[in-house]
Amino acid sequence: MKDLKGRCIFAQSGGPTAVINSGIAGGITEALKNPNITGVLCAVHGIKGVLNEDFWDMSKEDESEIEALKHTPASAFGSVRYKLKNPETDAADYERILEVFKKYDVRFFFYNGGNDSMDTCDKISKYMQRAGYPVNVIGIPKTIDNDLVGTDHCPGYGSAAKYIATTINEIARDADIYEDPLVIIVEIMGRNAGWLTAAASLTKRGEGADLIYLPELPFDDEKFLCDVEGVVKAKKHCVVAVSEGIKYNSGRYVGEDAANTDVFGHSQLGGVCGALKAKISQKLGYKCKAIELNILQRAASHIASKTDVEETYTAGKQAVKAAVGGETDKMVSFKRTGDYEITYDLVPLSITANAEKGVPKEWITEDGTWLTEDFERYARPLIMGENEMSFEGGLPRYARLKKVKFKL
Amino acid sequence: MKDLKGRCIFAQSGGPTAVINSGIAGGITEALKNPNITGVLCAVHGIKGVLNEDFWDMSKEDESEIEALKHTPASAFGSVRYKLKNPETDAADYERILEVFKKYDVRFFFYNGGNDSMDTCDKISKYMQRAGYPVNVIGIPKTIDNDLVGTDHCPGYGSAAKYIATTINEIARDADIYEDPLVIIVEIMGRNAGWLTAAASLTKRGEGADLIYLPELPFDDEKFLCDVEGVVKAKKHCVVAVSEGIKYNSGRYVGEDAANTDVFGHSQLGGVCGALKAKISQKLGYKCKAIELNILQRAASHIASKTDVEETYTAGKQAVKAAVGGETDKMVSFKRTGDYEITYDLVPLSITANAEKGVPKEWITEDGTWLTEDFERYARPLIMGENEMSFEGGLPRYARLKKVKFKL
Repeated sequence: MKDLKGRCIFAQSGGPTAVINSGIAGGITEALKNPNITGVLCAVHGIKGVLNEDFWDMSKEDESEIEALKHTPASAFGSVRYKLKNPETDAADYERILEVFKKYDVRFFFYNGGNDSMDTCDKISKYMQRAGYPVNVIGIPKTIDNDLVGTDHCPGYGSAAKYIATTINEIARDADIYEDPLVIIVEIMGRNAGWLTAAASLTKRGEGADLIYLPELPFDDEKFLCDVEGVVKAKKHCVVAVSEGIKYNSGRYVGEDAANTDVFGHSQLGGVCGALKAKISQKLGYKCKAIELNILQRAASHIASKTDVEETYTAGKQAVKAAVGGETDKMVSFKRTGDYEITYDLVPLSITANAEKGVPKEWITEDGTWLTEDFERYARPLIMGENEMSFEGGLPRYARLKKVKFKL
Repeated sequence: MKDLKGRCIFAQSGGPTAVINSGIAGGITEALKNPNITGVLCAVHGIKGVLNEDFWDMSKEDESEIEALKHTPASAFGSVRYKLKNPETDAADYERILEVFKKYDVRFFFYNGGNDSMDTCDKISKYMQRAGYPVNVIGIPKTIDNDLVGTDHCPGYGSAAKYIATTINEIARDADIYEDPLVIIVEIMGRNAGWLTAAASLTKRGEGADLIYLPELPFDDEKFLCDVEGVVKAKKHCVVAVSEGIKYNSGRYVGEDAANTDVFGHSQLGGVCGALKAKISQKLGYKCKAIELNILQRAASHIASKTDVEETYTAGKQAVKAAVGGETDKMVSFKRTGDYEITYDLVPLSITANAEKGVPKEWITEDGTWLTEDFERYARPLIMGENEMSFEGGLPRYARLKKVKFKL
């Protein structure tokens, strides 16, 4: 809807990335200077902050600290994994959100997250339309998983990819020092999409990783052991990059623990590297180390990609421009042109909500253990450029927010 | 012995550090321009390279690539965990080394390693003295463990400490995003000395780590659970930094696996974070994540301390200057003066061989879970300064050596 004027709310949701705050920083900066936006609020712990009227007033923060958010990892305003019910079954949360929007004269709502968050965002947007409450709702994408539909890539992916490739490079140098056979299994995030694990191919094959296994192809124990044995026989040391989400042909996750599912019903994975380590020790008898990159891969802002930081910042700005310009019910997306240039676009929230985009199978080499040049052409530009963060006492300095509660 | 002239050998041993190659780079650079040194050889896989006459000729390498070794992690010439026998029981290896030294006219021998390597170095030096073969033997210290006696600190420690503090800072931001209670246990290397784990205290208490457990104090399960519960009750999230080497009063390692010992008879630790995670889940019922920093903490040259890189480089140069100046049977050491200045000294190899220096108990706070200001004054200068490495394709660029075999 055009010509809206009122307050805006930013909220973050889901697992963070190294650059998630960069998007919010861009958005806040743009919103603070826009005459149609009469107040800039950040909800604490995502949608829960809205339900609880728990907001911080961004006009009270120093400009330099908002800028420092570009280099501050994890959701600076807290996150949430609270799943809104379907409004047709239970509209209580939506009614409450409408009440809060009215009370605070909220006319612009920005939600920063992945698939589940875009679903939340979409539901809120549709509910407000039906309720006849004018508010422009724009999603700002973020996910290290890079699995959102409707965008060339996702803010957060480039930095995680850079961390993963850098770390695997370092691990491989370490693996190489002794003469005895050694296998190192590196477990990488990515529930159903192998984008993060594929980033291991950005190091030269054999110098960084040797073998890569993505969830896009069924995993086979015998082939895996045969692949590893081949590498060890050829060069003594074998570094394997493996997605937490690899599955057998039967559909069972290699690292599945049926007891753990999150509130969205997804299996909580982990332990793949341990399972594979056991197979290697038992069947091949090689010394094997299992390394789980864990949350380090989504939090390592110290080795963030400058391209990612800057694109994410601009995505935040674009969200505000779009909302003020009258757009609603959309997510900011990236369009790639030429060798590598990015333009910013908008896609309907509904097409990104709850959909997942995997690595194209034709980008996986025929032997199933590496990526083609197409992947490199796609991913290399995303990890380019080094972050220019400031250090204090030898350590990265993060934003220091005053966190002033917003008062009407 | 003064006025020696002949070839020199550099060799690396033990587990690597992020800056181990910086020391060798300094040494090679110095050796290549010294008129008393007629050839600069690097032994491949440490002392085994000497026994096998497997050497690379450093005069064949480009100067810029030797410089790039400053930023290349892990032992660029390979390492070894081979333990020389006591020469009085079995002198075969020493006789062979003497034979090789004679054949290649080796008059300077530089061994780069930790306690065990200094012991090897010392035994070789003493044997050559008894055999009447003039060779000056100098140890170049390296160990992320920082446990060598006779030096203010060890090359490699500052970079590992910087990585650990940076990573724990990032982990803690990530731990903070949700409202539910969460405990994260971070397992850090250091078999019997807590220097690495203590580095977690370089982040502000409560913003990075909350609790720190070093092997210098006996570990008590009940106190630990009580400490964690206190933090979770106060601030919901608790980040624990714990050394792999923590032991109960009985002397048993918390993460002990009696089945694994290395060739030096040391227990191979690991699994402490898993053991503690189980205790927290079972006794306190909190969600808990276990993160093992594993070899990442010794390989992360991308976040190396500039102070460490430069000091290590200079230590390598000093080793060569000392050897050519007539010194032998010594290790290069660091002496601290004033607020923070380093001068380079020499200490007898015998005093560093097989000795271990732990964190002074008076630097641990009374509650046993943090470090005093004395530790901060000691450690902060060691992590200062950011590494200036070059990047290629978005990733750190390492030295590309030609690895030309040395021929007589």
